[in-house]
Amino acid sequence: MKKELRIGMIGYGFMGRTHSNGYRRVNNFFDLEYTPVLKAACARNQEELQKFADQWGYESTENDWRKLLERDDIDAVDICVPNNLHKEIAIAAAEAGKMILCEKPLAMNSEEGEEMCAAVEKAGVANTVWYNYRRVPAVTHAKNIIDSGKLGRIFHYRANFLQDWTISDDLPQGGNALWRLDVKAAGSGVTGDLLAHCIDTAVWLNGAVTEVTAMTETFIKERVHQETGEVTPVGIDDACSFLCRFENGSLGLFESTRYARGHKALYTFEVNGENASVKWDLHDLHRLDYFDHADESAVRGWRSIHVTDSDHPYMGNWWVPGLQIGYEHTFVHQVADFLKSLETGEPCAPTFRDALETQRVCDAVLKSATSKSWEKV
Amino acid sequence: MKKELRIGMIGYGFMGRTHSNGYRRVNNFFDLEYTPVLKAACARNQEELQKFADQWGYESTENDWRKLLERDDIDAVDICVPNNLHKEIAIAAAEAGKMILCEKPLAMNSEEGEEMCAAVEKAGVANTVWYNYRRVPAVTHAKNIIDSGKLGRIFHYRANFLQDWTISDDLPQGGNALWRLDVKAAGSGVTGDLLAHCIDTAVWLNGAVTEVTAMTETFIKERVHQETGEVTPVGIDDACSFLCRFENGSLGLFESTRYARGHKALYTFEVNGENASVKWDLHDLHRLDYFDHADESAVRGWRSIHVTDSDHPYMGNWWVPGLQIGYEHTFVHQVADFLKSLETGEPCAPTFRDALETQRVCDAVLKSATSKSWEKV
Amino acid sequence: MKKELRIGMIGYGFMGRTHSNGYRRVNNFFDLEYTPVLKAACARNQEELQKFADQWGYESTENDWRKLLERDDIDAVDICVPNNLHKEIAIAAAEAGKMILCEKPLAMNSEEGEEMCAAVEKAGVANTVWYNYRRVPAVTHAKNIIDSGKLGRIFHYRANFLQDWTISDDLPQGGNALWRLDVKAAGSGVTGDLLAHCIDTAVWLNGAVTEVTAMTETFIKERVHQETGEVTPVGIDDACSFLCRFENGSLGLFESTRYARGHKALYTFEVNGENASVKWDLHDLHRLDYFDHADESAVRGWRSIHVTDSDHPYMGNWWVPGLQIGYEHTFVHQVADFLKSLETGEPCAPTFRDALETQRVCDAVLKSATSKSWEKV
Amino acid sequence: MKKELRIGMIGYGFMGRTHSNGYRRVNNFFDLEYTPVLKAACARNQEELQKFADQWGYESTENDWRKLLERDDIDAVDICVPNNLHKEIAIAAAEAGKMILCEKPLAMNSEEGEEMCAAVEKAGVANTVWYNYRRVPAVTHAKNIIDSGKLGRIFHYRANFLQDWTISDDLPQGGNALWRLDVKAAGSGVTGDLLAHCIDTAVWLNGAVTEVTAMTETFIKERVHQETGEVTPVGIDDACSFLCRFENGSLGLFESTRYARGHKALYTFEVNGENASVKWDLHDLHRLDYFDHADESAVRGWRSIHVTDSDHPYMGNWWVPGLQIGYEHTFVHQVADFLKSLETGEPCAPTFRDALETQRVCDAVLKSATSKSWEKV
Repeated sequence: MKKELRIGMIGYGFMGRTHSNGYRRVNNFFDLEYTPVLKAACARNQEELQKFADQWGYESTENDWRKLLERDDIDAVDICVPNNLHKEIAIAAAEAGKMILCEKPLAMNSEEGEEMCAAVEKAGVANTVWYNYRRVPAVTHAKNIIDSGKLGRIFHYRANFLQDWTISDDLPQGGNALWRLDVKAAGSGVTGDLLAHCIDTAVWLNGAVTEVTAMTETFIKERVHQETGEVTPVGIDDACSFLCRFENGSLGLFESTRYARGHKALYTFEVNGENASVKWDLHDLHRLDYFDHADESAVRGWRSIHVTDSDHPYMGNWWVPGLQIGYEHTFVHQVADFLKSLETGEPCAPTFRDALETQRVCDAVLKSATSKSWEKV
Repeated sequence: MKKELRIGMIGYGFMGRTHSNGYRRVNNFFDLEYTPVLKAACARNQEELQKFADQWGYESTENDWRKLLERDDIDAVDICVPNNLHKEIAIAAAEAGKMILCEKPLAMNSEEGEEMCAAVEKAGVANTVWYNYRRVPAVTHAKNIIDSGKLGRIFHYRANFLQDWTISDDLPQGGNALWRLDVKAAGSGVTGDLLAHCIDTAVWLNGAVTEVTAMTETFIKERVHQETGEVTPVGIDDACSFLCRFENGSLGLFESTRYARGHKALYTFEVNGENASVKWDLHDLHRLDYFDHADESAVRGWRSIHVTDSDHPYMGNWWVPGLQIGYEHTFVHQVADFLKSLETGEPCAPTFRDALETQRVCDAVLKSATSKSWEKV
Repeated sequence: MKKELRIGMIGYGFMGRTHSNGYRRVNNFFDLEYTPVLKAACARNQEELQKFADQWGYESTENDWRKLLERDDIDAVDICVPNNLHKEIAIAAAEAGKMILCEKPLAMNSEEGEEMCAAVEKAGVANTVWYNYRRVPAVTHAKNIIDSGKLGRIFHYRANFLQDWTISDDLPQGGNALWRLDVKAAGSGVTGDLLAHCIDTAVWLNGAVTEVTAMTETFIKERVHQETGEVTPVGIDDACSFLCRFENGSLGLFESTRYARGHKALYTFEVNGENASVKWDLHDLHRLDYFDHADESAVRGWRSIHVTDSDHPYMGNWWVPGLQIGYEHTFVHQVADFLKSLETGEPCAPTFRDALETQRVCDAVLKSATSKSWEKV
Repeated sequence: MKKELRIGMIGYGFMGRTHSNGYRRVNNFFDLEYTPVLKAACARNQEELQKFADQWGYESTENDWRKLLERDDIDAVDICVPNNLHKEIAIAAAEAGKMILCEKPLAMNSEEGEEMCAAVEKAGVANTVWYNYRRVPAVTHAKNIIDSGKLGRIFHYRANFLQDWTISDDLPQGGNALWRLDVKAAGSGVTGDLLAHCIDTAVWLNGAVTEVTAMTETFIKERVHQETGEVTPVGIDDACSFLCRFENGSLGLFESTRYARGHKALYTFEVNGENASVKWDLHDLHRLDYFDHADESAVRGWRSIHVTDSDHPYMGNWWVPGLQIGYEHTFVHQVADFLKSLETGEPCAPTFRDALETQRVCDAVLKSATSKSWEKV
């Protein structure tokens, strides 16, 4: 018999769906001691919540997250609400002795993040943050290749995350669906939403960022608020780019925007080392491009690795070589790794503490964009 | 409350997994009147079967498919056993009044296929064959584009399915895992396994094939049998290619092989029409390349459509634009469409009758490879 | 002082330009004992001819090729006229002791080709046929890789040459510009024009073709004749595809058409060997894709070789790594190799005799398309 | 009879070859009133110079550029020497009334550039700077598309120029071949060599840059000097990246390096507008990717335009659709445009004045890298 991990889900939006799917599928594909049990889903709007709970098979619902935290039949809470609510819930959950799986970014800023880290560490509860792109097989494979030393000294890291979905000025801000455009709920625009992913991957692959110089822009200055109907100033950054230096001496270049016409979710990164390089692109997520200078000169070229073999990360659990998995599987992988961490007692990265590092870089970036100076992380 | 479709699964191999996953996931993503219930899994090896049943949540097991057919609590059987067993089971299932979801190819040859069609049509039971690649969103999208008339008169259809996994002569044939290499179990090699997919898609997109000239080859002539340990002649075709004419006057070119070093599962097709063309590739399955001669001349070029928007086939049920799904989702789609067909009373294509057409082309191809003549379909 | 090779050019069309450019540029980039001298250009239309001669710096003109052959100041003739004139001119040129550079295909058919071979061999004159695509650096590089043994036993060869320029039924046939559409001048349609290139490369890379089965089609059955204005039947093949076997046991698949909407001049080939594969595409002509199964499994993938380094064929004579050359350079390379062959006394492949082999395959292909049988080459 | 433009070439290095080839070829392909005449080549090393002159057909040689400027039979001088010599020669040439074609970057810095502009404008002599990449057909096509208004308001411009040829610390600096690594001869490293190209194109396509924040790095701190054999500090920037704002409100992101393992000469740019976007890549230089949001939603995608049609810039002068030209042709185009400008009396962009704008951006970039502040251009 498998051990149960009883989940209390807070929120039912897009991330609520991806995480629920992760819990539902993990045991079909991964051999683990634990099995997640969808004990309760929690949100204020009972009608919407019930639909969600039925769709995914949650056993019960709650309308107040404090009630959820009081329940004895919940082992872990999953925080899938807007960023401005992360801190309060996470700290209370830690105090209630619950494990926490928190959607990214960790917090509104690193001060909040610090408090959250302190809380989970004091409580000694297992914790992780859903920076899911680490667990695209090709991205994990990049990590393994870099850690193997194949690249040698790293010279360059560049990443961007380009979207185009907010170009129209008819798009409202705020409300349930569009809270990512409301600075009060989101804290920032593309910096916390998109760049945070790029930074998490970068720090994981290439180590700490030490200083940054950044630029942000808000192209559309006012939008109707979805709930109030009022036209109000837009507080988020529509685009943010920055240059940085890493502790290992390499140079970084990052960009994210929701105004790059033609790109839906083009997250790409490239790492150039002395001996080898890797690059990756979310729009063709199974490919890892790899260049190895040690190859015989006349037949040297970028290799297009279709990361679908059983000796590639996570892929032995799925189908056969050549057959792809998709976006949602990254969440299944994170659930699998979290459950595995309960078996081994090891933390499941990125922990709150790991995610705080990303938060610090985001803070420095936003500060630099205002100060127009280089800022230390 | 949803209506139940109680499934009896026969077989537990690779296809048993993909179909089971389809049944398990469909209601999380598609809004349907029916829900599949995994009532029983059936196979001779009880130990392996029980593991499979536990993994996927089948309620019970059977070791004799005849017993399964006698059970009143089974509405539909799913045939996931080697090709040489399809006919007998399918006919018995039809006679028992069960709906049938049969793995492809339909049968060992078109004579068998005829009998199977007769049986399901006489019994009036719902039936479908798992030619799953039709339901890759980009492939369904190609169908819609062609049906819209955008291509105009079709001149060319070409497809190939290239793999490289059997190149080593150390690989045994036969047994549980490698029955696809044993002509007695599989009927043919790449023709039934790979070309059948290409033909199914082709006939769906471009109409009937009228005549063919073909060539087959078995590169490695003898292999150890996995179970007996004996070295015996290889009876399957390792590679098969053919030229053909379609009823609509267009020309076809097809190739499949397991000896194309460097390709894991490169299924590609391209259709050239008078006004526009489409092409697709399973290794980057969300892309549909589309060329429209009506575009303004100076900015005309192949368009790379990332088929992940909510107005693309099936994609409204998944995530957001730019985020990919994978191979396994094609089976979820087929389950969804089968359940929908129960609501509407329409057949769920490809039916046995549709799949028989593909079988006929395969037969003509194999016959032509032997006769060294053009053969009518 | 360099030795002179005094050229008499017959014809002034598209190929007249590419060859003339080859002669004009070769000594700027290649260090050779010989230098071509553009002694005379020859054609019936004096006005057009004079323009051409002025553009390229030919010293004189002739209106009768027989006169040209009589001149003592001509060492070599370059035959750039429609296919139906090759034989007569070539044989007369050989008898006059001139070296011959003949545009491809060698002749209208292999009977003509035999006579031409006999003539040049009897006369002992240097001869070559302009199958220029051999001398794309990436194609020559493919030849070197295959000859090195990296691929091992070859299983598959596939090639196609796809165009779309004749789809409109408004296009006339015949005349100066469109003689390629007139069967009397061209002998065949895509078979001699496009497939001949594919076959020349294939035989060079992979050895002799032994038997073929083919299919041709003429999609537009009648066209206005450009000169007479009459609507007459179209005698050429608009599309031609064939399957074949090579002497080395590998299988071939070839296709060419002028009805593949979206492709301007998509000549591609791929060779799959036991250990490695190569593929190439004229639309991105500097790339050679190479897959080597000997690569470490986890980082194995198709390598995209940008064939622009000084250790790549011909590239040491041009610019620096990363900087491309183009279509016209293949003719410069052939001139360079022809001049080099004069220094060494070695033949400059493909000779008439080499090109006859291609002609034989073309003949077998056209015969098979009519006989609807496999035909020996 | 054509009018002559009598050229005096100063220098015989890599750029001396590309320009000479431009002069030699232009009249074979472009119909112009003028024809360049290679009157004299000038350099100190007579042996090397004579070889160069013979190779390209220069009628005479000079060993002192002052002598060259005194000659009456020279209409225009072409400056192909290291950057630190541009100013003195250009000013003297202007004073001598010669037209000037100057290799990029214009000067060591914008102060020098100002003096050079003043000199040519005072003298009223025709002048141009060889920013050749503007004249890749696909790049010129991008310019036309942007100027047509198809993109609408521009949000983003990003460009990079990535190379890897200086990674080894065995590589010496300085001397004839490697003056680009010697700060005294080159003025800067990748900023003047590579970024200057990116900036020239950017300003041409997207207008003036107003302010920048930049970062430079020298990865290898000391190198042997090629001539002296001494190990001395490296003064150039090995890598340089910057963020900027354009006058039109768009954001820019630029990077160049010689330490991006795997890239030979990867110059790429992308421009994102409200309605459409374009991107381009020097390694596949005929492709222009174009995305048009006005396309019908379901078949919208990046278009891969193979810029080889006769209605594409410059391509009507070359071959037929699908057939590529290469790197060297950009110089032929610049010669053609310069000769055309003599017919029309219009300046041939980029003039010295245009190139000064690029120089100013380079200066601001280098200043910002030192000051660690945003700098105005």
